Amino acid sequence: MEHNYRELKRECFEANMEIPRRRLAIYTWGNVSVFDRDAGVFAIKPSGVSYDEMGADDIVIVDLEGKTVEGRLKPSSDTLTHMVLYNNFDKIGGVVHTHSPYAVGWAQALTPLVIYGTTHADHTVQDVPCTPPMSDDQIRKNYEEQTGWQIVNHFHRKQLNPHEVEMVLVGSHGPFTWGTTAAKAVYNAVVLEEIAKMALFTRLVNPDVDRLKKTLRDKHYERKHGPGAYYGQQ
Amino acid sequence: MEHNYRELKRECFEANMEIPRRRLAIYTWGNVSVFDRDAGVFAIKPSGVSYDEMGADDIVIVDLEGKTVEGRLKPSSDTLTHMVLYNNFDKIGGVVHTHSPYAVGWAQALTPLVIYGTTHADHTVQDVPCTPPMSDDQIRKNYEEQTGWQIVNHFHRKQLNPHEVEMVLVGSHGPFTWGTTAAKAVYNAVVLEEIAKMALFTRLVNPDVDRLKKTLRDKHYERKHGPGAYYGQQ
Amino acid sequence: MEHNYRELKRECFEANMEIPRRRLAIYTWGNVSVFDRDAGVFAIKPSGVSYDEMGADDIVIVDLEGKTVEGRLKPSSDTLTHMVLYNNFDKIGGVVHTHSPYAVGWAQALTPLVIYGTTHADHTVQDVPCTPPMSDDQIRKNYEEQTGWQIVNHFHRKQLNPHEVEMVLVGSHGPFTWGTTAAKAVYNAVVLEEIAKMALFTRLVNPDVDRLKKTLRDKHYERKHGPGAYYGQQ
Amino acid sequence: MEHNYRELKRECFEANMEIPRRRLAIYTWGNVSVFDRDAGVFAIKPSGVSYDEMGADDIVIVDLEGKTVEGRLKPSSDTLTHMVLYNNFDKIGGVVHTHSPYAVGWAQALTPLVIYGTTHADHTVQDVPCTPPMSDDQIRKNYEEQTGWQIVNHFHRKQLNPHEVEMVLVGSHGPFTWGTTAAKAVYNAVVLEEIAKMALFTRLVNPDVDRLKKTLRDKHYERKHGPGAYYGQQ
Repeated sequence: MEHNYRELKRECFEANMEIPRRRLAIYTWGNVSVFDRDAGVFAIKPSGVSYDEMGADDIVIVDLEGKTVEGRLKPSSDTLTHMVLYNNFDKIGGVVHTHSPYAVGWAQALTPLVIYGTTHADHTVQDVPCTPPMSDDQIRKNYEEQTGWQIVNHFHRKQLNPHEVEMVLVGSHGPFTWGTTAAKAVYNAVVLEEIAKMALFTRLVNPDVDRLKKTLRDKHYERKHGPGAYYGQQ
Repeated sequence: MEHNYRELKRECFEANMEIPRRRLAIYTWGNVSVFDRDAGVFAIKPSGVSYDEMGADDIVIVDLEGKTVEGRLKPSSDTLTHMVLYNNFDKIGGVVHTHSPYAVGWAQALTPLVIYGTTHADHTVQDVPCTPPMSDDQIRKNYEEQTGWQIVNHFHRKQLNPHEVEMVLVGSHGPFTWGTTAAKAVYNAVVLEEIAKMALFTRLVNPDVDRLKKTLRDKHYERKHGPGAYYGQQ
Repeated sequence: MEHNYRELKRECFEANMEIPRRRLAIYTWGNVSVFDRDAGVFAIKPSGVSYDEMGADDIVIVDLEGKTVEGRLKPSSDTLTHMVLYNNFDKIGGVVHTHSPYAVGWAQALTPLVIYGTTHADHTVQDVPCTPPMSDDQIRKNYEEQTGWQIVNHFHRKQLNPHEVEMVLVGSHGPFTWGTTAAKAVYNAVVLEEIAKMALFTRLVNPDVDRLKKTLRDKHYERKHGPGAYYGQQ
Repeated sequence: MEHNYRELKRECFEANMEIPRRRLAIYTWGNVSVFDRDAGVFAIKPSGVSYDEMGADDIVIVDLEGKTVEGRLKPSSDTLTHMVLYNNFDKIGGVVHTHSPYAVGWAQALTPLVIYGTTHADHTVQDVPCTPPMSDDQIRKNYEEQTGWQIVNHFHRKQLNPHEVEMVLVGSHGPFTWGTTAAKAVYNAVVLEEIAKMALFTRLVNPDVDRLKKTLRDKHYERKHGPGAYYGQQ
């Protein structure tokens, strides 16, 4: 029943169009997906289609085994990475991958994005983790699926909560972000690029500065969580 | 009498819209307030409302104890910081907070913005001060109010005149600026970002360069003050 | 037969207009040519004409000895560099020269652009080579023709395949890129600037990071070549 | 005879409007003048007027002693700097002052802009000189007039030809450029900012790289001078 997915495709299309608008990627680089957990499918950008030529009809619907359910085009080559995240992070509704240059800089440097200030702390009170480069074992398997496992395994090993840290740097590669919705995941991709830029400037001014002090990180954690949370119009 | 504040709201709205226009902040980040000293109230951006959706009617009127006097929406989460500045800096008419990336870089580096040249000296002949990170004592109290006290206390300790130095870096956080009007405060926020960028470039070219020599700083001070002041059409 | 070249000129004009649109060069800097291998001629930007004043009719048609075949204007001063590349790289259909600032930074630093990540590997699995500065012998000869020979000889010495590495940094000068079409060559020029930027950020975050590991480079090579190649809608 | 200067004012206005268009300065910063050598006067931007509010009628006409000949507004506070350059550099027809951030970075670093490549060499085959900061003696005199003498004296001491090197960094201050016309002087200001950016990137990639080799500098000198000169449509 094709009409079922019209709204999902529309949401996915809109979220993808934020990528060039926010200057997170050029040409066809970058991709956003939206998950319909009830239907067990996600909508994702088609592979190799540029943003100015893409319409909502070009969005592809894929199931949780990575099979195309609906769509004339091949889904993004990163589809299996998205699939692994939906299968393993149980409350997320959208995933974003970009090649935004400051975030890529940290990812290629194989360096977690250190939390230096409150802009970062307003979004997560941890360093943004950076996975090690893919192991030779993984490289021999399905590359994009293994990129998903790089992320999931790293969060597991580091005991990170994907709902507290909605962003990651895949070592030697670049950023992935997620969120309860695709719009939130895109927002996180913009934030990640902005705090990656700020952190580089911070290091260039003072290479020896410490990460944000623990009491401030705790305070920012409390601001967003629990009964005393405040911000915005809620 | 609601109509009393129409002009104040309009001025506050216009000043806030300069924030995205001058690329000082993304999304809902950043906020500008305008002070009506006679009425003892200030107009400020609502919390968590993005610039493209905000109208002049959304601006909130707050008194000097931080209570909303008029407005359907919650005021900016930074409202109490603005309040403390209006209560303590006696000639200011506007306050601005942004997360502009070069200024945040210096703030996160816990480093005062060194005065390296005349662009800086045209606006203040001192380094732009950087407060220490908030103390654990302060963190336990009202966070935003304490951000205001971080600024006021630092100016007091360093014997800085807030009418000579209309800008500050809050350590681990970011820039606040002010001025006799909100428009002047926004201007100062743009200037701060520009001189923060220039100072970083300066250090990258020559990490060992000294601050601007004292005789030049004195000269620039005289250009703006006293009977021999000159610049602009006055 | 003038009408023969109308399409070639149009293609060349369109490809040139991408240079300012993608911010690869200012004023008249930069030039793109398109090769018609059957006719043995290429279309190229006229010399010293700015992008906003140029029309498709201003494009110049040049043969493989560098002689103007058609056109009212002098061809680009870099024409002989393009000619040498068409004469020596046997499958290319377009050549681009820009002064994009990050790529120039590496070229002036006389440093090959190290492959730090998968963004780079998606386009070539080698470092982007940087030629040595022109020798005194070459400087005494035709400068622009020798720039072409700098590139061709460097690829020969380093045993690089110009169809695997479609970009080069000419030492002390700047980037040249090419491709099977002019549009692809322009795409490569944009990519080169983007990976040059990312690689600089990478070094600033972590000056000691190694180049992308060999197994990952091999994997990316396979993704684009041979029976298992996948990406895009083919 | 007021109408005499209409064309001069128009040319000056157009050249000034390039400053914000090319992003060389914000607000009212920066100024361009045009010299009419026969009339012994120059047209210059009024002081403290922002680019979006300025019209051609606001341009001020000043003589070679710095006195306003025509105009309702005060001329730029940098007027006497321009005057000194017109009085001492005998073939120039336009002068530009900006606060473009990369050029200011080098000026504040008290470091000549090293010639690292051919982009620089296409415009001058020397390092762009950087004057020492103004001496205490000079600071006590007319500040803006002394800025002009800083430049003139530095060129004299270093035996630099202002028609070979049409740009300078005033130490602790920023860039001045000039040319046979105001349009050429603005072009030089854009070029200076671009090569200042490229040179910073070069140093960040490889701090130990040497300046462009002498034989290449000589070659570029010959390309622009004497009987064998070539470039553009002349």
